[in-house]
Amino acid sequence: RLPLAPGSFLVDKGNYRHFMAKEIHEQPEVVGRTLAHYLDLAEGVARLPFELNFDPKSLSRVTISACGTAYYAGLVARYWLERFARLSVDIDIASEFRYRDPPLPEKGLMIVVSQSGETADTLAALRYAKEHGQHILSIVNVESSTIARESETVAKTLAGPEIGVASTKAFTCQLAVFACLALALGRARGVLTREQERALVAELIAAPGQMAEALNREAQIEPVARDVARATSVLYLGRGPSFPLSMEGALKLKELSYIHAEGYAAGELKHGPIALIDYAMPVIVLAPPDASLEKTVSNLQEVAARGGHLILIGSPRARHEAAAELAGYIEMPETVAGAFSALVYAVPVQLLAYHVATFMGKDVDQPRNLAKSVTVE
Amino acid sequence: RLPLAPGSFLVDKGNYRHFMAKEIHEQPEVVGRTLAHYLDLAEGVARLPFELNFDPKSLSRVTISACGTAYYAGLVARYWLERFARLSVDIDIASEFRYRDPPLPEKGLMIVVSQSGETADTLAALRYAKEHGQHILSIVNVESSTIARESETVAKTLAGPEIGVASTKAFTCQLAVFACLALALGRARGVLTREQERALVAELIAAPGQMAEALNREAQIEPVARDVARATSVLYLGRGPSFPLSMEGALKLKELSYIHAEGYAAGELKHGPIALIDYAMPVIVLAPPDASLEKTVSNLQEVAARGGHLILIGSPRARHEAAAELAGYIEMPETVAGAFSALVYAVPVQLLAYHVATFMGKDVDQPRNLAKSVTVE
Repeated sequence: RLPLAPGSFLVDKGNYRHFMAKEIHEQPEVVGRTLAHYLDLAEGVARLPFELNFDPKSLSRVTISACGTAYYAGLVARYWLERFARLSVDIDIASEFRYRDPPLPEKGLMIVVSQSGETADTLAALRYAKEHGQHILSIVNVESSTIARESETVAKTLAGPEIGVASTKAFTCQLAVFACLALALGRARGVLTREQERALVAELIAAPGQMAEALNREAQIEPVARDVARATSVLYLGRGPSFPLSMEGALKLKELSYIHAEGYAAGELKHGPIALIDYAMPVIVLAPPDASLEKTVSNLQEVAARGGHLILIGSPRARHEAAAELAGYIEMPETVAGAFSALVYAVPVQLLAYHVATFMGKDVDQPRNLAKSVTVE
Repeated sequence: RLPLAPGSFLVDKGNYRHFMAKEIHEQPEVVGRTLAHYLDLAEGVARLPFELNFDPKSLSRVTISACGTAYYAGLVARYWLERFARLSVDIDIASEFRYRDPPLPEKGLMIVVSQSGETADTLAALRYAKEHGQHILSIVNVESSTIARESETVAKTLAGPEIGVASTKAFTCQLAVFACLALALGRARGVLTREQERALVAELIAAPGQMAEALNREAQIEPVARDVARATSVLYLGRGPSFPLSMEGALKLKELSYIHAEGYAAGELKHGPIALIDYAMPVIVLAPPDASLEKTVSNLQEVAARGGHLILIGSPRARHEAAAELAGYIEMPETVAGAFSALVYAVPVQLLAYHVATFMGKDVDQPRNLAKSVTVE
């Protein structure tokens, strides 16, 4: 692949009807580029392109704060930082964090995430953490932004300019940076052996190709989207990293189609939302092949047993294990591994919201009431 | 007040149509009883009725895990434990926590919360924490339960038997225990002076009386409930402790009326859900007189500016500051102080869900698909 010329994204929508479609389809390219920036592909290990001003072994805890989609990227990253670097993660919405007056560990690490680098609440969270002696690492897409300028370390996403108001490629690039960071910290902290790291890097670098595969299956998403477009209410379920991805999927549906979609931890179904289940409300289940697949399938069957309107996003194996009647099915490649599946499963989640909204005739690049960058509180 | 005879709740519904109504109305009594158990009313300080097997000063962090309504009680408590005891709080849904393999601090404190003490996922979270050397404190309503038996310390809620499937009085009693615990830990850790503690205890013991006042205003909730009963979708907004309370309010509406209600951090409105705003979807705003009132009011005005269907739960002062056209208003006593307002604001939140469901002819004591105690995973 040839490097893209700076600013080339700004020219036009290419062959796409909307910037958002273009940006969704750019993901294998820009996620690949971002991974190449944070990985040593020859050695098969993570290699951060910056020095950290502290010893990762001295950390006990990481604090993360962000808004909207960037917050969901942080929630996914929590699982990775815990598992691969054995770091506790305290994550909160920036507009909550900054007013909570949270106690922070001495010389701890604060990670803020923002596509634009100008999100007002996230900037305020950064400043609070700075005043309380935290090291500040920001994951931003705009290197000249205020958040980048005020950070000790800037981890840039190489997504290129994102024009669509609903974030897509910035989100998966944020995930890519977080994944590499978790591996680098895991090695530095002596949690991961070189072999474990190599195996995880191999899974990670397979992601862009799998994202391309997922994009090639766009045609199967259209009938599902036509079905969802008839709904007024949607429930999105997942476990583990798929729980925040389900919230991101719900957010995309809200933003683009104005359908009231909600992401929920699949394990919480029985503690309330199962009362909502009827034949009309689509229940979208994210079932990647990770350690919680069996439990997720069991939640799916609970929905099926109550005559729910089920849509499964998963591999043929997940479909087979579910053994339930589905109103819709989006097939994912069987080759996707468990650890970083959120990177790949983000693609159908975005495409589904995109197609639902276009079927409904909504303006996907400029949804009502929304601004690309929320620079007021 | 006379002590209630054991088992007296089981006899009948008293003068109420449903157990749930009875249990909502019992709250000033049972919350008062619970507070009296955890406070020294003569001295005006917190006084835990058990010894802790560790020095609270040695703690840096507390882990909390629970499901459903008990999880929301923990989320409210997070603000209190941070503010009054300067403890970091790592809180997660039990069905997520147990599979996350989370790193835990050495000899840390794990708090689990469960009305029945039999919630399967919460019990599994407890066992994980125990295996990892945590001190276990459980907040339960049933002292003979499995969770109580397996805990090092049991903090009981004195709610009496809760029959309605949707938890109400157990929730506010959980909040009462958490509030006292936060104050006791704050004193033990040298965060609160005796004077600060006395002032906070005074606020806390005013809560049962304010809950009774809120209950006396039930009549004004009925027209609001009639309005909400026409909706298919509801957004519930709050900041700080009112954010988890908004999720609890949404959960109650889901459970009882099968309306798709969702709780959202008010500060996140502009990052997506504002696209949903139209004249039809009720947006319920919790605006207690705490430090975030001004910001909450500003979010309310954003909804108003887009022609949203606003319902305010707040004091006359909040209504005055909002200066917006309201589709509904539930007036709360002006005397409620900021710190523990969630205890009092829980009452209109519960009453609203109750009346919406009864208008719709739903079986509030036994909603479809739900069990009182979720003893399977």
